[in-house]
Amino acid sequence: MKNNVLVVHGGGPTAVLNASLYGVLAQAKESDRIGAVYGAIGGSEGILKERFLDLLEFAGDEGKKLLSTPGTAIGSSRYALEEEDYRAMEPILRKYGIRYVLFNGGNGTMDACGKLARALGTDSDIKVAGIPKTIDNDIGITDHTPGYGSAARYIARTTAEVGADVRSLPIHVCILEAMGRNAGWITAASALARKNKGDAPHLIYLPERPFKEEEFLEDVKELYERLGGVVVVASEGLKDENGTPIVPPVFQTGRSVYYGDVGAYLAQLVIRKLGIKARSEKPGICGRASIALQSPTDRKEAVLAGREALKAAMEGETGIMIGFERQPGEYCIRPIRIPIDQVMLTERTMPETYINDRGNDVTEAFAAWCRPLTGEDEPDYIDFQEIYRKREEGRG
Amino acid sequence: MKNNVLVVHGGGPTAVLNASLYGVLAQAKESDRIGAVYGAIGGSEGILKERFLDLLEFAGDEGKKLLSTPGTAIGSSRYALEEEDYRAMEPILRKYGIRYVLFNGGNGTMDACGKLARALGTDSDIKVAGIPKTIDNDIGITDHTPGYGSAARYIARTTAEVGADVRSLPIHVCILEAMGRNAGWITAASALARKNKGDAPHLIYLPERPFKEEEFLEDVKELYERLGGVVVVASEGLKDENGTPIVPPVFQTGRSVYYGDVGAYLAQLVIRKLGIKARSEKPGICGRASIALQSPTDRKEAVLAGREALKAAMEGETGIMIGFERQPGEYCIRPIRIPIDQVMLTERTMPETYINDRGNDVTEAFAAWCRPLTGEDEPDYIDFQEIYRKREEGRG
Repeated sequence: MKNNVLVVHGGGPTAVLNASLYGVLAQAKESDRIGAVYGAIGGSEGILKERFLDLLEFAGDEGKKLLSTPGTAIGSSRYALEEEDYRAMEPILRKYGIRYVLFNGGNGTMDACGKLARALGTDSDIKVAGIPKTIDNDIGITDHTPGYGSAARYIARTTAEVGADVRSLPIHVCILEAMGRNAGWITAASALARKNKGDAPHLIYLPERPFKEEEFLEDVKELYERLGGVVVVASEGLKDENGTPIVPPVFQTGRSVYYGDVGAYLAQLVIRKLGIKARSEKPGICGRASIALQSPTDRKEAVLAGREALKAAMEGETGIMIGFERQPGEYCIRPIRIPIDQVMLTERTMPETYINDRGNDVTEAFAAWCRPLTGEDEPDYIDFQEIYRKREEGRG
Repeated sequence: MKNNVLVVHGGGPTAVLNASLYGVLAQAKESDRIGAVYGAIGGSEGILKERFLDLLEFAGDEGKKLLSTPGTAIGSSRYALEEEDYRAMEPILRKYGIRYVLFNGGNGTMDACGKLARALGTDSDIKVAGIPKTIDNDIGITDHTPGYGSAARYIARTTAEVGADVRSLPIHVCILEAMGRNAGWITAASALARKNKGDAPHLIYLPERPFKEEEFLEDVKELYERLGGVVVVASEGLKDENGTPIVPPVFQTGRSVYYGDVGAYLAQLVIRKLGIKARSEKPGICGRASIALQSPTDRKEAVLAGREALKAAMEGETGIMIGFERQPGEYCIRPIRIPIDQVMLTERTMPETYINDRGNDVTEAFAAWCRPLTGEDEPDYIDFQEIYRKREEGRG
């Protein structure tokens, strides 16, 4: 008898969320035990409303489009499931012959995943597994999450490009705002833009450290006087020493936070307090939807996570999330199965060893950890201004 | 006797500004009459300070990096030249054996170009020519300017990606802010993101039409109720019916304007007046520095403009700017030489025929004009939500 699979997406998308869905389809296609792979259309609400589409017919060439489709092809939701919702799911799953339920999402979705696994019980013949996904990289235990590598590559490349732009006409301070909620992982990845001394980013501010306005202004002033053009990368989630956001969120409903414009606020601060020209850029969700700056490593790992989750469920595992364990030596990860109660609603932020003492930069340890995730083939710019400067120095 | 060339960059960069510089180098290399191609380091100030670097040694493989280097490799400036500056230039040019001066920039730079040509006089053996460059596409006479095609491709692709993201989790209004100063050309190009009915962008607001808050809120409300997720693309330069910017510029010095955050303002308006969740994205200068989203057509034409400017100067032309004339039929442009006084400080905005009646969208005539400039190979996304919806409709 064939068994069916159900895939559910939760929360906001990443550049490789659909790549994990492709991984599930590819794995299912290789098995003769799978009858249908249902996508829950519109997230967990889609389960309760029985909005199911069998995706297995798209496992071939048409489905390969999933690798380069941003967003989520089956939709998502932020619907907060209640106790009774979990109980209501079992008869629906049985009605559709679903034996394997795969939740793909962040720590909120892993919470739902764990609760459904608990409601069904470990002895149930219906198995539930989680596929991690978040640009924020704030899920515990796993070395990193699918989606983060692409967000990191986006911010690194964008910082390098904005750096080249600002260096061309060095007359202002440019604040680049990065996503990541309460975790600085994305913001920190901007450091990978540096190739030569003096390259952007010149300052990096993370939500893990209280933001000190005076130190920020001191640092900006000193750099502006020296370089003319300064690039600052600041996290949307910056807080002051009391833990209060430096810009109040626009609004907040449950786990969904719409952050205030931190970049615009800091630019205004530079203008008002230092009298220096400043502007801000806030690519925002452009950075989690960019296919051109998808990390090839991230995409490969996202496919792997989808495959491994189905494999685990078919092997009888339930209440687990797939994670990555980094191997010693040259970059290599091994997929692992993490008991889901270890990651439900945890929020992993950056460790102190990845942040410099002054709290305005990251350490080389962070860069070494992050670099392979971006699959970065470093851009190779030519800078005649720098060549001229060096020749003049040689003459002087 | 060999003659030398001087290239000067003015104003903000584009994604293909350095490609035009490459074009000048490639053209110079093919001639046995050129001795050196000096780059004025740091824009027109670089002329007065005699900050010159001979770039001809980089005309080979190393110089090819110019094609994918954002910003300007020789630097730029916003230095406002005075009458005496133009008079001071001739002895400097003669000292370095410079016979051909090429200014690469927008309408402000073309003004400088024209003034130097006038100061030298048409009979002078020193010839001055302009290479157009602006993401804003606001230079007169020419069909379009190098730099615009890439900015258009960036906004089109980004709108498609943000559209896929918002459609995945359709719970808010997303305002994407586009650059372009007083001209809506870039904002308008977002329309190229549409492939199927209902695709983003759902509303487009251009500075050519007075922004009417009430109509905007009406349109957003109707779309939100119908779609759940709405993508609005708004120009940084939006003005009300009195011509006052809807958000005051952060500051303005001469021709340099730092626009206020129009996207953030409109998002706040949606939240406050309609009680609908909204957020804004402002990629800003990321959109003029993106190499991944460079238009191949734009890059090719930028190289051509550089080549043609040197060719014109070597043929004895002075006080002209290279422009593009579009040929009838399949997309094809012909380089033309435009008397520079026709483009000095003009500002070309979008014609009425490119804007719809309500002023919240562009016309198909605009899209047909714009499409070939982006060199767009359309992204091909897969959308299971849409497939599901159509199947349900078929059943219902």
